[in-house]
Amino acid sequence: MIDIKKANETAVSRMMAARPILRTVAPARDVIPGMRQDLLLHAGPPITWQRASGPMKGAVVGALIFEGLASDWDSAEKLVTSGQVALEPCHEHDAVGPMAGVTSASMQVYVLENVTHGNRAYANLNEGYGKVLRYGAYSDEVIAKLRWMNDVMGPLLAEALALSEDGLDIRALLAESLHMGDEGHNRNKAGSIIYTAKLAPLIARTGAADEDKAAVLQFLGDNALSVLNPVMAACKAMADAGHGVEGSTIMTVMARNGTELGIRVSGLGDRWFTGPVGQPDGLYFPGFTASDASGDIGDSTITETAGIGAFAMAAAPAIVTFISGTPEMAVNTTLEMYEITTAEHSAFTIPVLGFRGTPVGVDIRKVVELGIRPQINTGIAHKEPGVGQVGAGLVLPPMNVFEDALLAYAEQYSLV
Amino acid sequence: MIDIKKANETAVSRMMAARPILRTVAPARDVIPGMRQDLLLHAGPPITWQRASGPMKGAVVGALIFEGLASDWDSAEKLVTSGQVALEPCHEHDAVGPMAGVTSASMQVYVLENVTHGNRAYANLNEGYGKVLRYGAYSDEVIAKLRWMNDVMGPLLAEALALSEDGLDIRALLAESLHMGDEGHNRNKAGSIIYTAKLAPLIARTGAADEDKAAVLQFLGDNALSVLNPVMAACKAMADAGHGVEGSTIMTVMARNGTELGIRVSGLGDRWFTGPVGQPDGLYFPGFTASDASGDIGDSTITETAGIGAFAMAAAPAIVTFISGTPEMAVNTTLEMYEITTAEHSAFTIPVLGFRGTPVGVDIRKVVELGIRPQINTGIAHKEPGVGQVGAGLVLPPMNVFEDALLAYAEQYSLV
Repeated sequence: MIDIKKANETAVSRMMAARPILRTVAPARDVIPGMRQDLLLHAGPPITWQRASGPMKGAVVGALIFEGLASDWDSAEKLVTSGQVALEPCHEHDAVGPMAGVTSASMQVYVLENVTHGNRAYANLNEGYGKVLRYGAYSDEVIAKLRWMNDVMGPLLAEALALSEDGLDIRALLAESLHMGDEGHNRNKAGSIIYTAKLAPLIARTGAADEDKAAVLQFLGDNALSVLNPVMAACKAMADAGHGVEGSTIMTVMARNGTELGIRVSGLGDRWFTGPVGQPDGLYFPGFTASDASGDIGDSTITETAGIGAFAMAAAPAIVTFISGTPEMAVNTTLEMYEITTAEHSAFTIPVLGFRGTPVGVDIRKVVELGIRPQINTGIAHKEPGVGQVGAGLVLPPMNVFEDALLAYAEQYSLV
Repeated sequence: MIDIKKANETAVSRMMAARPILRTVAPARDVIPGMRQDLLLHAGPPITWQRASGPMKGAVVGALIFEGLASDWDSAEKLVTSGQVALEPCHEHDAVGPMAGVTSASMQVYVLENVTHGNRAYANLNEGYGKVLRYGAYSDEVIAKLRWMNDVMGPLLAEALALSEDGLDIRALLAESLHMGDEGHNRNKAGSIIYTAKLAPLIARTGAADEDKAAVLQFLGDNALSVLNPVMAACKAMADAGHGVEGSTIMTVMARNGTELGIRVSGLGDRWFTGPVGQPDGLYFPGFTASDASGDIGDSTITETAGIGAFAMAAAPAIVTFISGTPEMAVNTTLEMYEITTAEHSAFTIPVLGFRGTPVGVDIRKVVELGIRPQINTGIAHKEPGVGQVGAGLVLPPMNVFEDALLAYAEQYSLV
């Protein structure tokens, strides 16, 4: 007889005990397990070129141009459809990436280490706003920015982090930013400036040119999402710490590739349970409407998986200016997530709820029983490659992924 | 017939329209009107040595040692009691200072300019935590830190700010930090890291040594009150913009010297209305109790005067870990302040209250009629000089200052 309750408590306790530290920045090929020149990592569950959304295709093309493997859309498409370049989920390589999440071998990535359990997680660098690869843009200016990030910012961050005795404790940073109106997914304004301020003295001590130091500090400080990628890797390291607990029904991955959303469950190994992505409901930038939106995309739902993001929205009332809604809705969203989770987070607390811990550890049984799905905060990509972000809002995963996972659980644990 | 309503609307509109920009850092003697070598500025209304509280005396002694005018307590006391050195309120020189607020001629001060109306305001540099002059400490380590701030940090900040095209818009910074859980008086965590992150690229571009740049960035980023002093000067610049409106009953100064609290009123010129300070009620650091507390002290109540601080506490639920109370109490404090104020601030909004503007412009008539006094958030100083901060909490001004001001108003405007 499986003690599911105990298994879930173990999984969630491990997630909460995980303490992810940002150690360094290094080329993906040097640090990500299984990374190689003819492989592109992407957000969400497995996808083929043929089924990929516009922004995903655009990001694949851009990454191959960035690597010097292709010169344009057609040559890039050929590399992928011919199988000369493979596509594999970030999540199958201990990594995560926002929106398209496309990560190639040369790209600099953040390296996070969970010092409690020893596992590592990785994420690419955040590109800021405007035309960016993660939203499927691949013009010359996009590639030029990626090169600056790779050649100037990445090495400078690595040098700065090497000067830090203990690295940067991203769990501590998140705990603090949740007290400063962030929810850690769609609103990382406070976290990004904490991040910038913590790096600033280290960056000042590097041997880089003053202009490069100033440019990197300006880029990090102006980008209210600069900490999103290390935060996502931190959430990945925490969620992974809860994965693989025999008998546990806790969701440890939730990710979207623009076409499908996939989840993984602690006690069900590395199987994906997938379904069609939803269309986010939110606020659109001037000139855009819901008809411009791509399907839900990105690994950033690792934040909700780890107990922040939409789950911590009560901490971030100002987010409603960005995703629509009211401060009351933000509080109610968090309250509803307690219904489908297993614990209140010991590290992440919400002042307006009397410092109650955030809801953490989605139990797929509760989702199916109550019909309450995990809420997601998200950016919205244009459906055509190259356009970029068109809004931000709320979205839900398809119910079938939880039902399918629960059926699989019943089979695997001989409950049927 | 005076149109008091119109006069108050004018005063408050001017306070809200004021846009204070941090321009530079310079020695007090070079920028503060009327500053001279044999003068010390101090917090609150006028005070004599004889009536001064412990922390005020300690800070006076420290400032005279810092200036090389005295070598110890006795020689400092003699300078002041003999009249060789004068004591005058910061507020009588367009300046403000937290806690004792003692500012001497050589000290570097922030220079803020209200670009809407052209008036300027000044504040000394924040010393951070531990043994600090503003709490009445004057040991060698206190003086050494002041020297580093004056010789290294001040000039470096001046050089950095000179590289900024437009200076730093402190009203905009405050508007943002109120969306990040600050109230701008006792909680400036977000504002201080925004401040650090905004200065970081400018500091990187200065010609200073890398170690000095790193030390200044570390000092600013580690000190959750580093932005308090420019914020106070910004509030002074805003409040002063509303001062001197014929017929207005709006409070434009509220300040404490540790012995007395004094207010000034827009339509009553530069007269002080004073009364005995209250004893703050709050949380004490381990090892201290209410019996250790000095009377309420500091010019930092300029924040409440300008519509932030305790008036914006609803925006800062996490502050209750520091001053005691509950998040509900924080919300209720803000709601109560709407009863005695004239407007809702057009620049400062509170997300949890549906982005309602903060209550701004205390009308002394309403205070007296309703018996509701302006709430103050404050740090608590030890009553003996040299000990430092012992806690933080809430305190109220004495009612008589509002009653006295209202009587004076009736006389001046021949209403009796």
